Amino acid sequence: MNRKPALTLILAATVSTAAFAGEGMWTPDNLPKAQVQQQYGFTPDAKWAEHVQKSALRLAGGCSGSFVSPNGLVLTNHHCVNSCVQQLSTAEKDYIKSGFLAKEEKDEIRCPEIELNRLDKITDVTARVRTATEGKAGEAYSRAEKAIKSEIEKECAGKDSATTRCDVVSLYHGGVYSLYRYHRFQDVRLAFAPELEAAFFGGDPDNFNFPRYDLDMGLLRAYENGKPVKPKDFFPFSKNGADEGEMTVIVGNPGGTDRQLTVSQLELARDEQVVSYLLFLAERRGLLTQFRNESAEHWRIAQSDLFGTENSYKVLRGRLSALQDPAVFDLKRRQEKELRDFVDADPARKQKYGAAWDEIAKAVAVERNIDDRHSYVESGRGFYSRYYEYARMLVRGAAERGKPDAERLREYTDSKLPALTQRLFSTAPVYADYETVKLGWSLTKLREILGTDDAFVKKVLGKESPDALAKRLVAGTRLGDPAVRKALWDGGADAIAKSDDPFIVLARDVDVDARAVRARYENEVESVIDKNSELVATARFEKYGTSVYPDATFTQRFSFGDVRGWDEKGVPVKPFTTIGGAFGHATGSYPFALPQSWLDAQSRLNLNQRYNFVSTNDIIGGNSGSPVINKNAEIVGLVFDGNIHSLGGNYWYDERLNRAVSVHSGAILEALRTIYGADALVKELEAARKR
Amino acid sequence: MNRKPALTLILAATVSTAAFAGEGMWTPDNLPKAQVQQQYGFTPDAKWAEHVQKSALRLAGGCSGSFVSPNGLVLTNHHCVNSCVQQLSTAEKDYIKSGFLAKEEKDEIRCPEIELNRLDKITDVTARVRTATEGKAGEAYSRAEKAIKSEIEKECAGKDSATTRCDVVSLYHGGVYSLYRYHRFQDVRLAFAPELEAAFFGGDPDNFNFPRYDLDMGLLRAYENGKPVKPKDFFPFSKNGADEGEMTVIVGNPGGTDRQLTVSQLELARDEQVVSYLLFLAERRGLLTQFRNESAEHWRIAQSDLFGTENSYKVLRGRLSALQDPAVFDLKRRQEKELRDFVDADPARKQKYGAAWDEIAKAVAVERNIDDRHSYVESGRGFYSRYYEYARMLVRGAAERGKPDAERLREYTDSKLPALTQRLFSTAPVYADYETVKLGWSLTKLREILGTDDAFVKKVLGKESPDALAKRLVAGTRLGDPAVRKALWDGGADAIAKSDDPFIVLARDVDVDARAVRARYENEVESVIDKNSELVATARFEKYGTSVYPDATFTQRFSFGDVRGWDEKGVPVKPFTTIGGAFGHATGSYPFALPQSWLDAQSRLNLNQRYNFVSTNDIIGGNSGSPVINKNAEIVGLVFDGNIHSLGGNYWYDERLNRAVSVHSGAILEALRTIYGADALVKELEAARKR
Repeated sequence: MNRKPALTLILAATVSTAAFAGEGMWTPDNLPKAQVQQQYGFTPDAKWAEHVQKSALRLAGGCSGSFVSPNGLVLTNHHCVNSCVQQLSTAEKDYIKSGFLAKEEKDEIRCPEIELNRLDKITDVTARVRTATEGKAGEAYSRAEKAIKSEIEKECAGKDSATTRCDVVSLYHGGVYSLYRYHRFQDVRLAFAPELEAAFFGGDPDNFNFPRYDLDMGLLRAYENGKPVKPKDFFPFSKNGADEGEMTVIVGNPGGTDRQLTVSQLELARDEQVVSYLLFLAERRGLLTQFRNESAEHWRIAQSDLFGTENSYKVLRGRLSALQDPAVFDLKRRQEKELRDFVDADPARKQKYGAAWDEIAKAVAVERNIDDRHSYVESGRGFYSRYYEYARMLVRGAAERGKPDAERLREYTDSKLPALTQRLFSTAPVYADYETVKLGWSLTKLREILGTDDAFVKKVLGKESPDALAKRLVAGTRLGDPAVRKALWDGGADAIAKSDDPFIVLARDVDVDARAVRARYENEVESVIDKNSELVATARFEKYGTSVYPDATFTQRFSFGDVRGWDEKGVPVKPFTTIGGAFGHATGSYPFALPQSWLDAQSRLNLNQRYNFVSTNDIIGGNSGSPVINKNAEIVGLVFDGNIHSLGGNYWYDERLNRAVSVHSGAILEALRTIYGADALVKELEAARKR
Repeated sequence: MNRKPALTLILAATVSTAAFAGEGMWTPDNLPKAQVQQQYGFTPDAKWAEHVQKSALRLAGGCSGSFVSPNGLVLTNHHCVNSCVQQLSTAEKDYIKSGFLAKEEKDEIRCPEIELNRLDKITDVTARVRTATEGKAGEAYSRAEKAIKSEIEKECAGKDSATTRCDVVSLYHGGVYSLYRYHRFQDVRLAFAPELEAAFFGGDPDNFNFPRYDLDMGLLRAYENGKPVKPKDFFPFSKNGADEGEMTVIVGNPGGTDRQLTVSQLELARDEQVVSYLLFLAERRGLLTQFRNESAEHWRIAQSDLFGTENSYKVLRGRLSALQDPAVFDLKRRQEKELRDFVDADPARKQKYGAAWDEIAKAVAVERNIDDRHSYVESGRGFYSRYYEYARMLVRGAAERGKPDAERLREYTDSKLPALTQRLFSTAPVYADYETVKLGWSLTKLREILGTDDAFVKKVLGKESPDALAKRLVAGTRLGDPAVRKALWDGGADAIAKSDDPFIVLARDVDVDARAVRARYENEVESVIDKNSELVATARFEKYGTSVYPDATFTQRFSFGDVRGWDEKGVPVKPFTTIGGAFGHATGSYPFALPQSWLDAQSRLNLNQRYNFVSTNDIIGGNSGSPVINKNAEIVGLVFDGNIHSLGGNYWYDERLNRAVSVHSGAILEALRTIYGADALVKELEAARKR
């Protein structure tokens, strides 16, 4: 699945010297018009681009989507709404199992944690950022950059931070800074989700594989002031959906790529970061698997986390394979040498950029030393629990809101608070026994990775065992109640200081250590890498010009490709599957069991309807739920996955093998109509086309 | 813990060009006398060596031990008898928790699966093996080697295979073939084991760390004909135990090292084998952790497997770190180049040995392709269940026993059957719910690694889910009953063909595929590597002579070192801990809780008694339970672990950092006397010294 993986994003810029051929995640303000015209006979002009930009959406939690009707209907993946479906479920009503259909608008239920962003405007703010950071290094650079970003974002959002979201985005590794202004929708309601069995047919075994037979879709509706939003721009469904060889455009929010990391950064990823995180995920997977299998109730509670864990595991496993491929490293070494030779060939260039790679390597050496502590103490890998997450938001929120905006941790600046409080005040249930298991386990990892005699570990555990500590904290906390969290948030620093909630006490104790390692990371690693990556990026511009795309940053990108199979070790893989194929592949056993609704509808279904398909579009995690459109800006499909070769796409794009996997738009309509009897929704979608 | 890890052993020969300094696992027939004399002023003469050789023991399951009294008392580690202690426990009597003490000999209980081997004789059979394999390659080589080994072993054991065990061992990567004749003891009874809390104080967090506070010991007694064995050779306990700077000799059975693999083999280990197995272990660890935490009963059932999993995980993690250290690979590349340059410098040598490295690299390329299938289908990683293990022994045993000895799979030759049937007829309980969990999970791994559409996977799963299949098989099997297994074994091929036990049916179905991948592995990988490694080894002999030691092969080795701390990043680590230190480090919480027996005895204990200590001896997994002796062949300690740096010892020995970790002999006596009131055992040990 193409959910944005949880691996720490490393900002990176990308340049490609290869010919255009599906490769590239292009910003809306820099589309490769000439290449698209040459390849597909179509020019994405400004009007077309703006319409597409504003029809597409971002799910702030890590996915993409789009408006598909003038009445605020939103199409995305089931696996992007899965946690909402789980949060709305109870032991009595399990929508994961049964699916969900709101017969009418009034039956739609609000998702407690989904925020939608529509990108309204991009402004270049490079000069302003450069002026603010000029001549600075280390902590001073880091502070100056943070301050100017926060100033720009605050200015942009103005008093409308509830509905306006502004992010300063560093593109091309600091080659360009852009201000992205979004319209923010927080009242987002669930209209339709199929059964998990249909959405995720084939389960983890089929994930990142093809042929595929998944109805990985969900429909949401955006509301404002209690009424459905009426977007000016939206994508109607096309009449027939994707055809072989047809040009397809995917508009979405790829989460991150590492196509232009330096060799020293890639080595760190290969030798430390990816393996460490994979091992963490593998063990968590085993733990959650057994927890889930204990009862039907545990299955419902843990399935969403287990899905996320298995998905990230597979993504990272694929990346590790790519990093271990000598051919990939050879390519990276060659590219780096080419650029460094270019830099060194001219004394002025050498003076300006020559040291950047070594400076990055030095920062990487520091990162290698503090990475574990940063991951476990600051990034929360050692405190795997919703309660802790809430407690930390409350403790930090109280401290940070007392400071001027420019001096706050970046996720607590005014422009970031609406998204944060949406999660903090979420009505999603928290399950005490589950939290005890997760937290107890992750505390054992904290102890294992940092060591029993580590002062921080001793401070956290005292004389308790991880499991006993987890049990005590969970038994004593009241943070499961949203009203309690709201009161602590509103009470501010005073309320936090006075609280004796055991998770608040823990988060308070941890905070000084977490901030210390974060400061070291920001000042000695991140700022050095940012600053020197900017130099590398500028040198790259000097050599290759601007006909390039930046590495993915979970901001809107256009990818141009076409519907095409591939050759798998001599065996051609066809681009389409059919609905009939799903019945052929069903064994009746999880995860290859079709839901009863499908079995009941089999005789009425168009079994030849195209179901899933592949295309050459260049996508990555975060693109999940992106619309696949044709040149008329009509929906022809819905991206939900990539093939196994696409996992190496984090580091390079291989046109021969790398494929995006989508649900065909015709299958979406056929299923809604014939299986789910979602007549009102079908009518709405069909009407949108006819307008 | 230094248990022999389950990673496929790759036979390998070792040569060291470094000066002697603790490095080296020497065969009893080739001790480094001159170096030891020079370093320690002591010459290990033939009489001394024979006495030591025959006092020491091997635990066939993967550990070491030694006779410590004239009445057959055997000293080894708790973690080497842990699975026996677990097998003898029930929900009512949990010896893992309470410990075990036989007040008198008649109270000693037989361990269902422990076999002891005493090495009686080593004979060089190189010429005979060479003659048999000369001029052969591929499958023919493989068959010829197997046939001659089986012939030699059978000849050696004669009619006494119940008490005589004979193994042809390939040393120096095929540079030498030796016949090892052992006396075999299968009636082995548990005399004493402390509580797990004392034996494994610090648990996984402290494993492979130091300072350490573990009473990782157990006492067994060997019986023959219902009476205690009276060994001529045994090690009495020394008066005072190990002192700082004192020469220590460790005699045991290091399981395997990879110090002279070629660079292509090391790359395979680094990029594929170690990571794959680590990920498998990590997930299994998570699964078993949650299973264990479900109830006290599950804790007892799963703790031994979880311990083994965590131990192997840590070993492999350490190896991966070593493999990822550029310095280690640089060393290996330099060593390989040095030897290849030597070979290439002379036309005759080049003709004879020059192609060996490339031939190995070609076999490694094949191995890379079939390694997963070999691990999951043949080596059983995909069928993680005792029931399956039994079924497979029965199915294969029936088929193989019908063939001439020389044509059988090597583990079914006559000389191997006694060890095999001991495990097969074991009275250890099998827990159905636990087997269901393990098997269901491992079948999902089988499907994940080989792929859903793999023909073998389809054959195994049919239309069932892994969990449903596991449930059905476990519900239907009768193989939990040793009498049923005995009847099937005795019934031979006919009984197996007629059986409808679902595990027998499964094992029958799997066998053809498992044999196919095994044959490919043996003919295209193993035999090529064996043959060409022999050439590399011979070239190495030509260059470096015979003052070298072979890579470990789970056969008896002597290691010479001394009691010495080390410098840990500028901080000196002292060589000893004390019993008092254990109380200082106890938190009262698992795994840092001392058992009640210790708390009760605290005031009476000699808190200054040395407890654990480190020495420079070169050991590795399999050495667990090895005696640490002084020049008078008296016990001064008991090896149970290595420090974290010792994990890289699989690939190289670093005298500055690599340390063995042992229980001090004085602490063993103090604990038996003052904590456990094991008066008869203490008396027996003291009396042995005075003889």
